[in-house]
Amino acid sequence: MASAPKGNALVSQSGGPTGVINASLVGIIEQACRSAYIDSLYGAIHAVSGIVKNQFIDLKKLSMQTIGDLEVSPSAALGSSRDKPDEEYCQRILKVFKERQIRYFFYIGGNDSANTCHIINTMATDTGYDLAAFHIPKTIDNDLLVTDHCPGYGTAALFVASAIMGDDMDNRALPGIKIDVIMGRHAGFLAASAALARKRDDDAPHLIYLPERPVTIDKMMADIEAVYKRLGRCVVAASEGICDTDHVTWTEKILQHDEKDCHNNIQLSGTGALADFLAAQVKAKLGVKRVRADTFGYLQRSFAGLQSPIDAVEARRCGQTAVTLAAEHQNGSVALKRVGNGDKYSCDYFRTDLKNVAEKTKCMCDTFISSDGNDVTKAFIEYAAPLAGPLPRTCWLGSEPRV
Amino acid sequence: MASAPKGNALVSQSGGPTGVINASLVGIIEQACRSAYIDSLYGAIHAVSGIVKNQFIDLKKLSMQTIGDLEVSPSAALGSSRDKPDEEYCQRILKVFKERQIRYFFYIGGNDSANTCHIINTMATDTGYDLAAFHIPKTIDNDLLVTDHCPGYGTAALFVASAIMGDDMDNRALPGIKIDVIMGRHAGFLAASAALARKRDDDAPHLIYLPERPVTIDKMMADIEAVYKRLGRCVVAASEGICDTDHVTWTEKILQHDEKDCHNNIQLSGTGALADFLAAQVKAKLGVKRVRADTFGYLQRSFAGLQSPIDAVEARRCGQTAVTLAAEHQNGSVALKRVGNGDKYSCDYFRTDLKNVAEKTKCMCDTFISSDGNDVTKAFIEYAAPLAGPLPRTCWLGSEPRV
Repeated sequence: MASAPKGNALVSQSGGPTGVINASLVGIIEQACRSAYIDSLYGAIHAVSGIVKNQFIDLKKLSMQTIGDLEVSPSAALGSSRDKPDEEYCQRILKVFKERQIRYFFYIGGNDSANTCHIINTMATDTGYDLAAFHIPKTIDNDLLVTDHCPGYGTAALFVASAIMGDDMDNRALPGIKIDVIMGRHAGFLAASAALARKRDDDAPHLIYLPERPVTIDKMMADIEAVYKRLGRCVVAASEGICDTDHVTWTEKILQHDEKDCHNNIQLSGTGALADFLAAQVKAKLGVKRVRADTFGYLQRSFAGLQSPIDAVEARRCGQTAVTLAAEHQNGSVALKRVGNGDKYSCDYFRTDLKNVAEKTKCMCDTFISSDGNDVTKAFIEYAAPLAGPLPRTCWLGSEPRV
Repeated sequence: MASAPKGNALVSQSGGPTGVINASLVGIIEQACRSAYIDSLYGAIHAVSGIVKNQFIDLKKLSMQTIGDLEVSPSAALGSSRDKPDEEYCQRILKVFKERQIRYFFYIGGNDSANTCHIINTMATDTGYDLAAFHIPKTIDNDLLVTDHCPGYGTAALFVASAIMGDDMDNRALPGIKIDVIMGRHAGFLAASAALARKRDDDAPHLIYLPERPVTIDKMMADIEAVYKRLGRCVVAASEGICDTDHVTWTEKILQHDEKDCHNNIQLSGTGALADFLAAQVKAKLGVKRVRADTFGYLQRSFAGLQSPIDAVEARRCGQTAVTLAAEHQNGSVALKRVGNGDKYSCDYFRTDLKNVAEKTKCMCDTFISSDGNDVTKAFIEYAAPLAGPLPRTCWLGSEPRV
């Protein structure tokens, strides 16, 4: 392998923000500052659209104060974009790379970003331009291939578990039926993380519905009724991506619209329609008076001041690892491999080919989903618990002995 | 004044839970344990309904571990109730008090709870039963009279400000129009707390709509359009209680329903209808493509693991103060008086008559609302900032100099 070229580097962030995508950026900055191969470290504002518009900032000039704010700030501090570059768009990107002598491209994003990396990298190779393009994974959906899990998921899971823990206390105080709709288009990992909220036998969530298990309204109502009869209350965690047995999402059926983004994804978030629909079904079919519904919405990926400590550390190390590997004249996507679990949880970092991650998604595996399809297994809890990290404490006195 | 009687004490929690209602309970427990006048300290499960059903626990027997969990747990660990006791109901309560030799009654709740305290106290006096009934204020709406602010509000304000701060970063990363609906039936304090999120000139929220200022859809759309033209994005904080110029809430107009609780309050929370309606209006009237809406919902009062430190301390001291004052043979409601602000913020605690708080609510005063009616004033920020306490840090790099 030829030695790595000396040149400039570029970082950008793409797709839906997460709570630790900026931690990955900090990891890239600190490792790039240590690298003998990287001269200027540019940040492109608003991802690929910023690259073609030459909207660059100098990331080596950020103050320590700014870096300090950056590492704990949610969302994508460089801005994001929903543009999906085609061949011509990527040609324009490569032209800018050549003009600015950018030899290192670090793209923090999901599977679409990995694909953009892959196209640009292939194009550079084909034209004999020496480029190391690296994808750094992020997504709250946790749906990327190869990696054990995605940075961003742990923090979102901590948010969801904390929300459900509080909701459980609320539902105990004022019993009724509560439906919480959780993000996750086609992968149920985030909705499933609601299960981390459980400490006591009768803790919420009492039912978990995942996109991986089609379910009818009648089945959901029967499940809810059974829990309500048993406990006098019920908290339901439902993924926004739950679908009917014909595999059409319930949100599509309810809205009967088709607002799609440029990646051909239907908009499932940013509306309370599914939660309101399910609550109305419960009221109508079960005759329960106190029925409430919340859609956790964008808070799941952007709530300020909340990070899973392990998630933040891993996101940062993914950024550092990308720079280290690129300086070895490699391209690819950073992935995590779990080498210990439980109290001994830890991960190794490795590279995988961009094509292994590009444009592909994964769902929850069968061993993570209960046989009834309305809950998760112990194996899932063991998988997810270390990622969310320590959970808040709650207290319910209603089961103390009567005097 | 006759000396206080020696006897048993009872605590219960009522109304919608908050993030620090359990901190008040801890304050009562620790002070009661120090009091020479209080023998047993009972906790009634599910408020007044638990009292008449004789559902009591012994709060002096809680373990240190449980107390530790209790002080940080959101919601009402004793359970709550939406029952509104009438004369006959209060007679039954007083009967239980007499049977159990309860001489001290501590009721943590809102204005309805203050009224229940008042009725029972009056009834006790009329029948010659020696009772000290104390109301300890709590509400995320911050709408009780006399007190400078209500325990519970600061923590909810911290949640809202943190949510808006993250939402602002999200909206900067992927620009568009974002509408956030915030709790607060008739008082805009909580929606107004969104303003605490601002650090930079163009930070969200860009518009704040309060129940105190009727507004038409056309006015809101014109406001939003103006911000969108100026910044290319807009984040709106709207109270769930916003109303049209005929003073009918927009939620009522949209839902045209009348689910009311037993206090004759219309249910405004637990539905995404208002947020979805406003988003649809923006899409239809302004032709902006990226429009999202979130309803913060019950997370505002129940999210686990988040407390404003000053709010938790004040809630606890309110509980302690109620016990101290009751042991001086007084009844009443605990209130806070601000004696310093800004860096020197601090409060004194005092008693006020139950009738001053019972069944009354307050709204935002005019000096807290901007002349346009779509924002708050500096006076409001100075009022609310110490209550929410330190806010998380965020970072946006899009305004760094271009290179």
